[in-house]
Amino acid sequence: MTLTGKMLIGGAAVPGTRDALHAIDPATGQPLQPAYPGASRQQVEQACALAWAAFDPYRNTAPAARAAFLDAIADAIEALGEALIERAMAETGLPQARLQGERGRTCQQLRTFARTLRAGEWLDVRIDRAQPQRQPLPRPDLRQRQVPLGPVAVFGASNFPLAFSVAGGDTASALAAGCPVVVKAHGAHPGTSELVGQAVARAVERCGMPEGVFSLLFGAGREVGLGLVTDPRIKAVGFTGSRSGGLALCQAAQVRPEPIPVYAEMSSINPVLLFPAALQARGAALAQGFIASLTLGAGQFCTNPGLLIAPRGAALDAFLAHAAEQLRPCKAQVMLTPGIHQAYAAGVAALARHPQVRQIASGEPGEGPNRCQAQLFVTDAEAFLADLQLHGEVFGAAALVVQCEGAEQVPRILDALEGQLTATLHLDDADLDAAHALLPALERKAGRVLVNGWPTGVEVCDAMVHGGPFPATSDARSTSVGTAAIQRFLRPVCYQGFPDALLPVALREANPLGLRRLLDGEREA
Amino acid sequence: MTLTGKMLIGGAAVPGTRDALHAIDPATGQPLQPAYPGASRQQVEQACALAWAAFDPYRNTAPAARAAFLDAIADAIEALGEALIERAMAETGLPQARLQGERGRTCQQLRTFARTLRAGEWLDVRIDRAQPQRQPLPRPDLRQRQVPLGPVAVFGASNFPLAFSVAGGDTASALAAGCPVVVKAHGAHPGTSELVGQAVARAVERCGMPEGVFSLLFGAGREVGLGLVTDPRIKAVGFTGSRSGGLALCQAAQVRPEPIPVYAEMSSINPVLLFPAALQARGAALAQGFIASLTLGAGQFCTNPGLLIAPRGAALDAFLAHAAEQLRPCKAQVMLTPGIHQAYAAGVAALARHPQVRQIASGEPGEGPNRCQAQLFVTDAEAFLADLQLHGEVFGAAALVVQCEGAEQVPRILDALEGQLTATLHLDDADLDAAHALLPALERKAGRVLVNGWPTGVEVCDAMVHGGPFPATSDARSTSVGTAAIQRFLRPVCYQGFPDALLPVALREANPLGLRRLLDGEREA
Repeated sequence: MTLTGKMLIGGAAVPGTRDALHAIDPATGQPLQPAYPGASRQQVEQACALAWAAFDPYRNTAPAARAAFLDAIADAIEALGEALIERAMAETGLPQARLQGERGRTCQQLRTFARTLRAGEWLDVRIDRAQPQRQPLPRPDLRQRQVPLGPVAVFGASNFPLAFSVAGGDTASALAAGCPVVVKAHGAHPGTSELVGQAVARAVERCGMPEGVFSLLFGAGREVGLGLVTDPRIKAVGFTGSRSGGLALCQAAQVRPEPIPVYAEMSSINPVLLFPAALQARGAALAQGFIASLTLGAGQFCTNPGLLIAPRGAALDAFLAHAAEQLRPCKAQVMLTPGIHQAYAAGVAALARHPQVRQIASGEPGEGPNRCQAQLFVTDAEAFLADLQLHGEVFGAAALVVQCEGAEQVPRILDALEGQLTATLHLDDADLDAAHALLPALERKAGRVLVNGWPTGVEVCDAMVHGGPFPATSDARSTSVGTAAIQRFLRPVCYQGFPDALLPVALREANPLGLRRLLDGEREA
Repeated sequence: MTLTGKMLIGGAAVPGTRDALHAIDPATGQPLQPAYPGASRQQVEQACALAWAAFDPYRNTAPAARAAFLDAIADAIEALGEALIERAMAETGLPQARLQGERGRTCQQLRTFARTLRAGEWLDVRIDRAQPQRQPLPRPDLRQRQVPLGPVAVFGASNFPLAFSVAGGDTASALAAGCPVVVKAHGAHPGTSELVGQAVARAVERCGMPEGVFSLLFGAGREVGLGLVTDPRIKAVGFTGSRSGGLALCQAAQVRPEPIPVYAEMSSINPVLLFPAALQARGAALAQGFIASLTLGAGQFCTNPGLLIAPRGAALDAFLAHAAEQLRPCKAQVMLTPGIHQAYAAGVAALARHPQVRQIASGEPGEGPNRCQAQLFVTDAEAFLADLQLHGEVFGAAALVVQCEGAEQVPRILDALEGQLTATLHLDDADLDAAHALLPALERKAGRVLVNGWPTGVEVCDAMVHGGPFPATSDARSTSVGTAAIQRFLRPVCYQGFPDALLPVALREANPLGLRRLLDGEREA
């Protein structure tokens, strides 16, 4: 459990040979030991070569064997004990309970993909049997299954050092699909990354998986990341982070001789609509829920409610008064990194000096570096529509309330918004017709639409969509949370006229995996 | 049924206002009437605006209503009668029987998507019900379904004037998904396109669909196509054609403020592997099947077997002698367009003058313009590996046979190939082990792998994959033929905490559509 500052290239712990990075304790601004030297170009290539060598043997393991591997990773992460939580606290400033919860979520996520693997629906087996007598031409036997794309480059996110990082959702779903993974650790939590990487490596060894199935690299700049994305052996990319970072990876992936898919989750302000009857009936409770969601984890969630849309009037004034009252005593929380704090401060300052934006309330200022002072702003609909700067994400606990003059401004605002991860409606029975009328616009803009809840809190389950139209993600056809995330790393292959013995096991006539196949147009019971 | 030279912008037949194009009868080289003036920028925008206006009403029609619409399109195409076949023959040089068969395939394709719509699996309904008692936090009710992406731009292909054109697979699957379609007609068969467009327009009217659900534009250059792909209201693209054309659309789609998916099917040489025992046992029959597949439709199929890989030796020599014997009497066939014929002639000339390529046989030269003289060439494995020019597609009835010295050259050749639509194995029992060893490489390279068949002939069914790694297509995760093609135009949306009355019908608790939902982790029977 000792931190070594070394990367994992396949099973081998090796030091990087480029500039080192250090984690910084954001609560103090002080660097943490050890140093993490970055990967050289050669080391990036070595990790990719090992991943490529591992691809065929790994993808041909039985789904049950990969499921056991994912379970073993979860076990190995739990076996790290509190040392993992302590290091993550030091590197991220996140509190203990949050990180313990996130560890639970991370392990549950791995075990959920293990269950998905065993259930087998992800294979999407479709069989159209031969019709030798068909006129004018016989039909050959045709069978389809999903196969993995190839080695996947995963970029850890800063704001979920466990659940969206080294063994987070991208890694879990790629490994489930049968893809080896090369992780570029996020520079903000290298020690946490190393510990989790060691856990994955132990599971690789324990389960007898090919060593190249997992590598973990460090790198201070963009060189390691771009090296991964442009390596011909990498066939897909998972990324959670900034819009500029995501777009740079998309661009690099697109100009390769063989372009590859990039699943980048980037930017979302998660509009919340307060409908008149709900606002009238329970403004105080809504204000309490709103501020709790806004300030959770210093607002450092992709699904943070950064935009609130509501009809101007006495009910909204009362709501805002309640919200301000809730916000003022909120303690300043340590942000993840100095860079994130600087960006937050700049975003807040831009809102504060905007001539048509008014500051309603601030949380407590806090002491020490990198503290997030929560902020609430208000503007009106025309000002919002007139200035696209107000549509941008301020990552942290800041929100903008848009006051509308009438119901007809709401669809205009929705149409003007960029794509979002979530959209939230607070409504009572009397608001249902108005909400119903807006649903098409909401579905066009967001991957998840919520009623009478708050967007923070993303369940890992079959029905979750953590995705959405650009720029929320680079690929609205996908989700990065929930069991459907495995589909990102799969493609279909059709087998025509195969003798049974040559078919992949999933497609054999006797159905040894016990799948519910789409057989001659009918789903098996 | 009169040809007017007009476009269809929504329900209105309007003449284009830009340079006109004429179809050319490739059998004579003479232009056909009428003239087809191209769309202006304003007309492109008008079609997109109508498609956008139609999007919400159209996607909210019941799946059964859209199914009836697809059936009505098929009926209306059949009602065009032989006038459609005659015009298509004149514009493409394809024979009557082929076009009658293609019409049947086109109508069957529309009716297959109608059945798919009614079956409802495409909605991929996933429901995780609320668990209010769960600790530490309750789980909200979460429900997922698929929604359409938005208006789709479809580019007709030259080589399937019916099945991959105005009402072909892209249009059928996009309309099934709930996406309005704007077709850019292929310039080689504008009259055929107009007739089919009129049939679609009649079905739109008969079924009471919003008029913007379908438009048909003409355009001589790339301006209309690029105008469509860069219009912000277009949300996806379907294309079948050349590599350069497909890549230009991909590039244009990627640099939009909101990038969109492009499903471009571009280039494939469809390797065929002859295994030793099969070659030994039935070389003559294989040669006959090979030449029949190679010369079918003048070789103008994306799945034409352009590359044959086999072990050098007496069995291959005998195979080649049989193949040459089969090829020589093959009549020259009229190619689709003068441009395609020129490209074919240039590709054949390049092979003929290649120092390490030997011409084995030619078909009959034919008389008149634009005739495809079939050609068979041979080279050896090292020459093939050394020159990537030999890996390129020559669209038409030309094939290159690569003679291998030993079994170990075959995987090297497979690894060196670009992505393919198909890969074909001819094998006997004694070849099974060798074939099994190559399967991983074949799956990595191709969307469809065939045993003891020929790749021409693409079945429209559930299990078909007409797709494959780049550059066979721009998106290996998709198929453009078969019922899974609908998935290209869908994205998931999650509904959290919705009151039942506000939910889309497909997600309501009482399951009014009778779907087999994934309910709390279990597939309903």
